[in-house]
Amino acid sequence: MAVLGPNRYGKAEVRVVHVRRGDQHELRDRNVSVSLSGELDVVHLSGDNANVLTTDAQKNTVYAFAQRLGDVEPEVLALSLAEHFARAPITRARVTIDQYGWTRLGPHSFARGGDEVRSCGVVHDASAGASVVGGLRDLVLMNTTDSEFWGFARDEYTTLAETRDRILATSVDARWRFRSTSADWEASYRDARQALLDAFVGTYSYSLQQTLYAMGAAVLEAVPAICEVRLVLPNKHHFLVDLAPFGQSNDNEVYYAADRPFGQIEGHVLAEDAPEEGLAWDC
Amino acid sequence: MAVLGPNRYGKAEVRVVHVRRGDQHELRDRNVSVSLSGELDVVHLSGDNANVLTTDAQKNTVYAFAQRLGDVEPEVLALSLAEHFARAPITRARVTIDQYGWTRLGPHSFARGGDEVRSCGVVHDASAGASVVGGLRDLVLMNTTDSEFWGFARDEYTTLAETRDRILATSVDARWRFRSTSADWEASYRDARQALLDAFVGTYSYSLQQTLYAMGAAVLEAVPAICEVRLVLPNKHHFLVDLAPFGQSNDNEVYYAADRPFGQIEGHVLAEDAPEEGLAWDC
Amino acid sequence: MAVLGPNRYGKAEVRVVHVRRGDQHELRDRNVSVSLSGELDVVHLSGDNANVLTTDAQKNTVYAFAQRLGDVEPEVLALSLAEHFARAPITRARVTIDQYGWTRLGPHSFARGGDEVRSCGVVHDASAGASVVGGLRDLVLMNTTDSEFWGFARDEYTTLAETRDRILATSVDARWRFRSTSADWEASYRDARQALLDAFVGTYSYSLQQTLYAMGAAVLEAVPAICEVRLVLPNKHHFLVDLAPFGQSNDNEVYYAADRPFGQIEGHVLAEDAPEEGLAWDC
Amino acid sequence: MAVLGPNRYGKAEVRVVHVRRGDQHELRDRNVSVSLSGELDVVHLSGDNANVLTTDAQKNTVYAFAQRLGDVEPEVLALSLAEHFARAPITRARVTIDQYGWTRLGPHSFARGGDEVRSCGVVHDASAGASVVGGLRDLVLMNTTDSEFWGFARDEYTTLAETRDRILATSVDARWRFRSTSADWEASYRDARQALLDAFVGTYSYSLQQTLYAMGAAVLEAVPAICEVRLVLPNKHHFLVDLAPFGQSNDNEVYYAADRPFGQIEGHVLAEDAPEEGLAWDC
Repeated sequence: MAVLGPNRYGKAEVRVVHVRRGDQHELRDRNVSVSLSGELDVVHLSGDNANVLTTDAQKNTVYAFAQRLGDVEPEVLALSLAEHFARAPITRARVTIDQYGWTRLGPHSFARGGDEVRSCGVVHDASAGASVVGGLRDLVLMNTTDSEFWGFARDEYTTLAETRDRILATSVDARWRFRSTSADWEASYRDARQALLDAFVGTYSYSLQQTLYAMGAAVLEAVPAICEVRLVLPNKHHFLVDLAPFGQSNDNEVYYAADRPFGQIEGHVLAEDAPEEGLAWDC
Repeated sequence: MAVLGPNRYGKAEVRVVHVRRGDQHELRDRNVSVSLSGELDVVHLSGDNANVLTTDAQKNTVYAFAQRLGDVEPEVLALSLAEHFARAPITRARVTIDQYGWTRLGPHSFARGGDEVRSCGVVHDASAGASVVGGLRDLVLMNTTDSEFWGFARDEYTTLAETRDRILATSVDARWRFRSTSADWEASYRDARQALLDAFVGTYSYSLQQTLYAMGAAVLEAVPAICEVRLVLPNKHHFLVDLAPFGQSNDNEVYYAADRPFGQIEGHVLAEDAPEEGLAWDC
Repeated sequence: MAVLGPNRYGKAEVRVVHVRRGDQHELRDRNVSVSLSGELDVVHLSGDNANVLTTDAQKNTVYAFAQRLGDVEPEVLALSLAEHFARAPITRARVTIDQYGWTRLGPHSFARGGDEVRSCGVVHDASAGASVVGGLRDLVLMNTTDSEFWGFARDEYTTLAETRDRILATSVDARWRFRSTSADWEASYRDARQALLDAFVGTYSYSLQQTLYAMGAAVLEAVPAICEVRLVLPNKHHFLVDLAPFGQSNDNEVYYAADRPFGQIEGHVLAEDAPEEGLAWDC
Repeated sequence: MAVLGPNRYGKAEVRVVHVRRGDQHELRDRNVSVSLSGELDVVHLSGDNANVLTTDAQKNTVYAFAQRLGDVEPEVLALSLAEHFARAPITRARVTIDQYGWTRLGPHSFARGGDEVRSCGVVHDASAGASVVGGLRDLVLMNTTDSEFWGFARDEYTTLAETRDRILATSVDARWRFRSTSADWEASYRDARQALLDAFVGTYSYSLQQTLYAMGAAVLEAVPAICEVRLVLPNKHHFLVDLAPFGQSNDNEVYYAADRPFGQIEGHVLAEDAPEEGLAWDC
């Protein structure tokens, strides 16, 4: 006999662009996703949709709130939407927003600012209340020196040579948990991002794990409103090419940028006094 | 003061192809990822790599085991690798394998069998022991009728019309938890996959949630060795095109296949007597 | 002083799904693109749109024709659309169609048949008339033996070892030109595809170039209505892994499937009596 | 009877990173592809590889030249490589280079500068000599006003409303042909890029075609060494969302960013005195 376990549903990837018109236009380019849980057993068991707020209505709501709230930080929009959706029979709403950066070229002209994405996720639970996670991803960084890797464990399958000078490159995927649902979202984002950059640049690295921890700790130090940082850092390998067969030296000069396989380093860094995470990461 | 929380590291996406040569060649095309946890505080805090089995050695191990074990089911390879890696100072190893299907064209000739991927994930914990999750993803299905959607909740943002006949299409992402680390992996996969197909085809649907539950329950019924199914089903919307402006009717004949946004339906279906999940999904 | 050269515009990637309803539904899943040229200087030079048939109208036309023509081969739909669009001030219309394959699961149920795409392109020029190109792409093939590579040129940068037994794998991108605008499109596609498969499987290969030529020649032989084949065949390298450091042999058993770089082999194969290509490839 | 037509082969996507070490490191991150033609009939017809310079050797050559030439503009590397490869039995070599931008963060630290790619292509033909094409792609631009679209042709499938104020957004794919193989490559790139930006921003647009022409003409004016510009500009549609059902106005404020279908505008702009293109675009 089968039983229904945890479930959720919603509209994913509502691509909404908001323009605030004035002497100088302001642009917010977002990708909003909603996911709801609640009293939804009957729809699964019998197809009775009485408790189902359609994903089409969720989409409409995103557009309507985007207009009503206007040029606000993504966390503000996510908090408002999640609170709106979390009403019976829905008991928990998750809203995640990816925001794409644009660089100003003129009063109403912009260039897309690259792959980097600012993200946020809000969970609003009827009982537990609301929580906020911020973040960024696809921020690709490289140090061309000041990275070593040696003294590692050796087993029967270890053939890797030690190195005292290598390229260290990664694509930062960072998310951070806020202590409360009220913060200076813009400054927090700017300061957390800068802390990640500074720590990556400033850490003389003996392993990507060490760099990861330094990056997480730097965010906590820079933004007291943040109590936890979760990082996923792929090790984007750059291998020195052997040019000896062609009579050429290669003194850390020419590298092959590999695609796969790649190292994958993941870790959480917490403030000593971080409150319980509750439902914050259920987004 | 920052403290290190949960962490893991490993080599991702080792693309290994195994050929068993004989009168008729057998092909196993796999993408193997490894992720390890254990006594790794010092590498994060000070860059001391003494406890770090390099991700390069992990890659080598995947190749070596692939040769030694040969033409086995992916679950067998994952179990062997995970057990191998879970030795002090490593206390938990996760091995996930994607296996790509190939259709035989001749004794040693094959055509890639499409997007569909068979997956498995093994967690081997020094204390808790091992667990196995199987699955598949990117199996795209469509019913061109026998799908309705009406009687749903209506709020101030609901504009969707009810329908008694629509296309229902999805891309199946299914994972299933086994009761133990011993099963007929090949038959389980074949039967679980067929159960998914049969349930999708055979369910007269009033919502994708209903179809999801039917698919999960069908897998549990078909394969007693499986105790839980987790499904993620995007609703790949197909909207009827309005041809009235051109004086043409459109009696459920011509549809526009939309990309974004899309509905996203997620749910777990469990056997009534499913054992505790333990660490099974930590992969 | 700048002058305007060749130009064209249109609507790309109209995703249209057609269902023919009956005891058994028939499905046509297509991606249609249109590109038009003609008397369009003024729109470029001054923004006067009087001669511009909007790309929105082109999209509408695709839907309307899809309904009117129904369950036809893609070449038929492309020919009709291109003829329709090629009226003054438009002097040349190109219509390309990608058609996705679905496997029947039931009277109105289907599973997507993988990555492989059937393609066609029609050019209709007011002066030169119409031409048809068919094709397929993303058909991934592998021979696990019967492939050698030796006797190649050696310069100062050549370090590759010769091999008498390797994996040969590719992703077939083939397009073929028809002699006229009238043919048995369905049989031509089926027979051309089968000829490609048979030639790949049946050719004992000393180079991918040799296999390419055999594949092209096989299509010409199998389908007299086709007068030219253009093939792009990436060499999807599979490198034997060195297991000697671990005391294991590797007798053509375990391979690493590389992503980049890859070989890229391109060539045209023509019937001796192929008519002039005219505008056929301008699509 | 089948005959071999035009053909070529080579190594694609050699990912080479060059670091010039000094007080301040300089980074060149490139993706190099090579494609060769010549006396290659026998390899196609009989698998005789005597005239085949292996794609593996081509890859090695790319690495060796990258080291030897060092921190040069991509056009310089491509010209050297193409000249090297174009020796009997090879009669024509094409070398294309994509170069990825990185922003300096410190003396040896960098952040990837987004999607935008600088490209170049060189053709070196034994008879015709060499030619150079430069370019860029994936530069995404948006004007949030100063774009109209009206006065277009109307046929039986036209339903689009005219607009006096819309978003105009595109992803620029531009390539430009140089008059000779000697130019200030760095300044040309910088000035051509700036001309594209300025023309996009500064053109009050009545159609994307008009903007395209203005962009091409601006490049020609800014860089006399360039004699032709080829542009491909997708019209990335942003549709105003109808908020009336929710009692809200939408005064060019909230847009839906569509994925497909999209408009596609292509055109060439030439200097009045542009020399014959010869083989320049065969890359």
